Amino acid sequence: VIDLSLQPTTGAGRRFAELAAEHASEAANGAAEHDATGTFPVALFENMKQSGFLKATVPSEQGGMGLSSVRDLGVGLGRLAQGDGSAAIAATMHLGFGLIAQRLVADAARSNRIELRQSIVAVLEVLGTGAIVMANFTEPKTDLRHPNVVATPVDGGWSITGRKTFSTLCEIADLFFVSVRTETDGGPMTKSVLVPRGTPGQQILSNWDGLGMRASGSHDVVYDGCVVPDAYMLPGGVPWGQDSDLSLRIATVGQFPLVPVFLGIAEAAHLHALDAARPRTTADDPSADMGRAGLTQLVAENERDLATCRAVVDRTGSLLDTFLMADDSPRLDIGDMSRVHALFQCSKQVVNRLSVSVVDRSMSVVGGSSYRREHPLSRLYRDVRAGGFMQPYSPVEANEYIGSVALQQ
Amino acid sequence: VIDLSLQPTTGAGRRFAELAAEHASEAANGAAEHDATGTFPVALFENMKQSGFLKATVPSEQGGMGLSSVRDLGVGLGRLAQGDGSAAIAATMHLGFGLIAQRLVADAARSNRIELRQSIVAVLEVLGTGAIVMANFTEPKTDLRHPNVVATPVDGGWSITGRKTFSTLCEIADLFFVSVRTETDGGPMTKSVLVPRGTPGQQILSNWDGLGMRASGSHDVVYDGCVVPDAYMLPGGVPWGQDSDLSLRIATVGQFPLVPVFLGIAEAAHLHALDAARPRTTADDPSADMGRAGLTQLVAENERDLATCRAVVDRTGSLLDTFLMADDSPRLDIGDMSRVHALFQCSKQVVNRLSVSVVDRSMSVVGGSSYRREHPLSRLYRDVRAGGFMQPYSPVEANEYIGSVALQQ
Amino acid sequence: VIDLSLQPTTGAGRRFAELAAEHASEAANGAAEHDATGTFPVALFENMKQSGFLKATVPSEQGGMGLSSVRDLGVGLGRLAQGDGSAAIAATMHLGFGLIAQRLVADAARSNRIELRQSIVAVLEVLGTGAIVMANFTEPKTDLRHPNVVATPVDGGWSITGRKTFSTLCEIADLFFVSVRTETDGGPMTKSVLVPRGTPGQQILSNWDGLGMRASGSHDVVYDGCVVPDAYMLPGGVPWGQDSDLSLRIATVGQFPLVPVFLGIAEAAHLHALDAARPRTTADDPSADMGRAGLTQLVAENERDLATCRAVVDRTGSLLDTFLMADDSPRLDIGDMSRVHALFQCSKQVVNRLSVSVVDRSMSVVGGSSYRREHPLSRLYRDVRAGGFMQPYSPVEANEYIGSVALQQ
Amino acid sequence: VIDLSLQPTTGAGRRFAELAAEHASEAANGAAEHDATGTFPVALFENMKQSGFLKATVPSEQGGMGLSSVRDLGVGLGRLAQGDGSAAIAATMHLGFGLIAQRLVADAARSNRIELRQSIVAVLEVLGTGAIVMANFTEPKTDLRHPNVVATPVDGGWSITGRKTFSTLCEIADLFFVSVRTETDGGPMTKSVLVPRGTPGQQILSNWDGLGMRASGSHDVVYDGCVVPDAYMLPGGVPWGQDSDLSLRIATVGQFPLVPVFLGIAEAAHLHALDAARPRTTADDPSADMGRAGLTQLVAENERDLATCRAVVDRTGSLLDTFLMADDSPRLDIGDMSRVHALFQCSKQVVNRLSVSVVDRSMSVVGGSSYRREHPLSRLYRDVRAGGFMQPYSPVEANEYIGSVALQQ
Repeated sequence: VIDLSLQPTTGAGRRFAELAAEHASEAANGAAEHDATGTFPVALFENMKQSGFLKATVPSEQGGMGLSSVRDLGVGLGRLAQGDGSAAIAATMHLGFGLIAQRLVADAARSNRIELRQSIVAVLEVLGTGAIVMANFTEPKTDLRHPNVVATPVDGGWSITGRKTFSTLCEIADLFFVSVRTETDGGPMTKSVLVPRGTPGQQILSNWDGLGMRASGSHDVVYDGCVVPDAYMLPGGVPWGQDSDLSLRIATVGQFPLVPVFLGIAEAAHLHALDAARPRTTADDPSADMGRAGLTQLVAENERDLATCRAVVDRTGSLLDTFLMADDSPRLDIGDMSRVHALFQCSKQVVNRLSVSVVDRSMSVVGGSSYRREHPLSRLYRDVRAGGFMQPYSPVEANEYIGSVALQQ
Repeated sequence: VIDLSLQPTTGAGRRFAELAAEHASEAANGAAEHDATGTFPVALFENMKQSGFLKATVPSEQGGMGLSSVRDLGVGLGRLAQGDGSAAIAATMHLGFGLIAQRLVADAARSNRIELRQSIVAVLEVLGTGAIVMANFTEPKTDLRHPNVVATPVDGGWSITGRKTFSTLCEIADLFFVSVRTETDGGPMTKSVLVPRGTPGQQILSNWDGLGMRASGSHDVVYDGCVVPDAYMLPGGVPWGQDSDLSLRIATVGQFPLVPVFLGIAEAAHLHALDAARPRTTADDPSADMGRAGLTQLVAENERDLATCRAVVDRTGSLLDTFLMADDSPRLDIGDMSRVHALFQCSKQVVNRLSVSVVDRSMSVVGGSSYRREHPLSRLYRDVRAGGFMQPYSPVEANEYIGSVALQQ
Repeated sequence: VIDLSLQPTTGAGRRFAELAAEHASEAANGAAEHDATGTFPVALFENMKQSGFLKATVPSEQGGMGLSSVRDLGVGLGRLAQGDGSAAIAATMHLGFGLIAQRLVADAARSNRIELRQSIVAVLEVLGTGAIVMANFTEPKTDLRHPNVVATPVDGGWSITGRKTFSTLCEIADLFFVSVRTETDGGPMTKSVLVPRGTPGQQILSNWDGLGMRASGSHDVVYDGCVVPDAYMLPGGVPWGQDSDLSLRIATVGQFPLVPVFLGIAEAAHLHALDAARPRTTADDPSADMGRAGLTQLVAENERDLATCRAVVDRTGSLLDTFLMADDSPRLDIGDMSRVHALFQCSKQVVNRLSVSVVDRSMSVVGGSSYRREHPLSRLYRDVRAGGFMQPYSPVEANEYIGSVALQQ
Repeated sequence: VIDLSLQPTTGAGRRFAELAAEHASEAANGAAEHDATGTFPVALFENMKQSGFLKATVPSEQGGMGLSSVRDLGVGLGRLAQGDGSAAIAATMHLGFGLIAQRLVADAARSNRIELRQSIVAVLEVLGTGAIVMANFTEPKTDLRHPNVVATPVDGGWSITGRKTFSTLCEIADLFFVSVRTETDGGPMTKSVLVPRGTPGQQILSNWDGLGMRASGSHDVVYDGCVVPDAYMLPGGVPWGQDSDLSLRIATVGQFPLVPVFLGIAEAAHLHALDAARPRTTADDPSADMGRAGLTQLVAENERDLATCRAVVDRTGSLLDTFLMADDSPRLDIGDMSRVHALFQCSKQVVNRLSVSVVDRSMSVVGGSSYRREHPLSRLYRDVRAGGFMQPYSPVEANEYIGSVALQQ
């Protein structure tokens, strides 16, 4: 039987996707339990370390798998999500960072910023030893461009104070990639700083209790005068409240792989629908005739929505590889980078909406039993709703961003 | 400020709606706790007994409030649902029965079936003393027209055996109104029988553990050779697998009030959206400008969907009162009754879909905090999805029914 | 067979609806021809004069039918639209004015403004003799609140200059009810003035050539120093660019009856779908089995959308009668009037969207033959799209209005 | 400025796309006139012959451009459709045949069917001289699998009798590729036969008068004892009423390029929306502020829908190239071919729906002026609706097909 689902296109991508499928099985086994208890799947992540899966986006020079395709990273994470969406978003937080770092290294090399290049390579080397990194950007009551966690200079370093929320993967992260606000003569700047786990003043709460994605460990992290050396503050930055071509690239490369995660959840849901919609005999169920035609319609609508999501992930992923990851890709200016970012936002919207529809429709196909907590669809229904809240941009803001970019052209 | 929400149109309806609003406040206070623990709000229902709320659809002759409007029953239950959807669907199971019984009494009187009339009046008298009744119709893997719970004649009565599911309100019900299959010379028939709580052979499980509506106590009920006297078997019946004008009337009158329950859930959700969308200052939230226009759009879409649901409940409720409940309403034949039933199904579909949309959109307005379990919207998101599973007809079957009826005209 | 479509609720409404049905037949006969040639159905309107149909909203004291229900006016116009949408929107322009005038008379009486009352009664008397009036409000590149047609005082009267567009019914109108901008010491005001047909300086163009509604005669009307006596300028007015409670009442009462017109178009379309979807034998069509189930689904979706539109027209129409037309209805302040107006806008949006969907779906049911110009659905597809452009508010603006009103509460 | 629209990926594809853009300009100039008069753009097609555009899918060995990518054919036709949808669907009828013939030649060669190969090469040679071919498959009241045009054997050839409809491109076609029903001992078969223009008994009517696509010359063609030699009947065939892997391949390769045509129409519509939505000053239009935010939303939704359509065309086109056109592509069995065909149907559905939405939304952005016949959007609104009627499968049938294929897996 021909397979029309998303396939990786690079060698590293294929290796990654194979491992993803294996870990998906393991993740699926524990998903109900971790969902019920709201616990992080520590053993699964230990196994993903052992298999090399979590080093996928570390270059081979630094001991990793050398996966450098945003698209293929997404394809693999979509497979993992078929097993457990929580695990997939947690893995994305870490793996996306590797891709970003790869690009920063290439950019630094191209612009002869030797020192910058070395500092990022150093981080990749740490990741190559198995360390886990997470992006700690989200805060309550503000957006990514306006971080309120403050970094103030202290002797030989920086002191970090404030609170981050939805800190997915924080339970096992070794390094926290934290966005901060710093005051400069030219006004406030948004910068990024690395905070090693256990730095005094960092407190990882255990307060994640979500509607879904309950195994993602998305606790709050509090920084209270948490001091790190100068070298941990990344060079550069953006005026507070603004985007730069670089901040958009980081957001695009790091967050796009979350999109196929929600496709993966929808694909898992559709399997339940297919199973339920296959013809039953009226001996098994005296009402089997009624609604048969309607089930076929719903299955068709799922097929169409999944085909749409796959196409959107495929094309946007490929374009991101071409424009942002390729060795010969030009550095886009802020205008072009906005257009690429808007395309990412379009893709995110499409997949977020359609994946919710597919899960909802699958419940209609399966019937009332899917409304019981014991049925996996009841978890997928809760998990899939997270898509609209994934950074950057709520659905509300995304339309405004996409429309404004289009009207500037 | 002018109030454009649904208003009762009868005196009893107004009294009922006022009590509903009071009980809604009480229900709201306990909703989070009962949802978390999956427990039935026994104290709330005790208070609803005390206030007379649960006798609303018992005629005043039998000691009740004398509410006889399907529409006004729905209006009040919608208000209760603004406090807690679980409590509202549970109350509907009981209160809908009263309306059905009123009609059966009127029909019996009109056709001079004195004995039948007396037996139903006797049930109403029991309800007038405060007894709780529930409709125990749903079974796994079949539909309402094909019950597999069997009633076999025994000396002086009937023996009931089989399993019912989604038995909302069973925790406190005194009487179970059970659909059964009986064998006759003319083939299998669907009939209804009343089983008093505690009849030997009846076992009420404690296995309800739903995605939402967790406080509704919708356990399974097992009947294992449960014997009731002849008088408890209602006269009449329908060939197994078929509808009759009577079965459609019972289903329409008894189930329609569930429709506004889901409107009530959506109205509760919209209040959260309004609260979140009211202008904030950028001092409170530096990102407040972004998305402002989009929030207004989402609020408008909620308003439109709620206005649509209200209109649909209003018109269908009024038509049901005219055609099914009025003293002078003609007895519709099966063809016309199908058309009325199809209109009910259209209304159910519209409200089920739009109420889900309103809750979903309200979450988008509120943002990520609504995805935390502590936020009421996370419960409404789970509760509102139950609408599509409410009897009769899944969304899949409803389209087939509605279309077929239209094409028969 | 039970009739679940919209029914009039007043005596005058029933008479009006009966005439509407008769004129609808006549209109249907000529619709294709008038659509093809873009000609106004003069003979039809002559007959509607003769039958008294066009005097429906003139009080009986002034020789009319005495219809005073916005809802029932809409119900009848919806029936006329089943024959020809163009004729229905043209008739609405005239008949809506009568309702507005009725209210103005009642208001003036209540506030003891004898002179104002007399001047409006005088207009109603003219309408009672058979005169036709039309509302000439729309202009290019502005909205209703910002008219750019200017009225400047001249000796004993006013001189009107500017251009109106989409002047439906202008071909046969005797009186033009024109919104104008006048300069006052307190800044520009929006006022209304009556211009008799043939007043020197008024030029009625013959330039209407629309995608649909081609028989509505919606030409441009140019005013070039067109002088009318003082008495033709209505007292009162609104600061230019603003709403008042009165301007909102006029817009609501006068424009709401357009909403059911689009329901009527959808109902006409659905009849074609029903006809095409009724089972064919495979002898007639060897492919008849394929898609049968899908057709039933589409028919069901039409039924649901039509039921929704009817409910929305029914409820909003009834509320408008209660709040705006009833003898004892209080005069709403601007805040409450905005809420009522927003409800009208919600209704307009729902019916505009769903009526387009019903026509579109009916084409899918009928198949490729509906894409031929000779098929009535190809006209309905063009006509129904006009709904979104009907005053006041485009779909774009309506959301902003509805959302803002909701957030002010 | 970065260009994120669909780009050709092959050399021939790039040449084809460039010519398409040039011819699109020419087509755009004449589109309004040909739409108004319902005339076929003969001069445009003459120029497309001269430029080599119409030989794009003829292999270079036979004097053509050698375009062999279904995807790139679609990309170019989408560009042509930005100028005139009618011209694009007409060109597709001809150009799709070339791709089909290329595959048939390759298949015949692979299976050593020398004679078959030669006969198809002979047709390609005719096309290489500039001849125009069209697929004459559609008939009233049946579907593609059940042709009722009959071919009966006569001395040395076949006699063709029956009526084809929607015969796009027939005005200038030199060869008609006609599906017929023939009786055999094994029951009725569906076969294909080539009929040269002007064969006695063939009558090309001038009866095309569509809602849209008015310049496509989609007349009826009547065959009345039209005799062609044996050699013009293609070998093979399918039992009447069935699909074969071959018939599905032909339908997929030949019809898929119609999908991007409707994307092209939507892209043309969006340009009008962008133009209208760019900020105006309130000096130009006093109502310019109202609705500004809503316009940005609508533009964003257009952007998202267009991005979705592009992704769907891109991915499905690429998969069709891989599975159906590549030199090394395996011959899919009927099961796999059905899956590929179902994916094509999904893509068709998505683009048909979203392109209608984009045009509709663009009209809302532009406002009432787009409802005038003189505005290009009023033509696009009529043209784009044709998508759902394009072969094979109506929207009604497509869902049934897609769902059934999915449930067979």
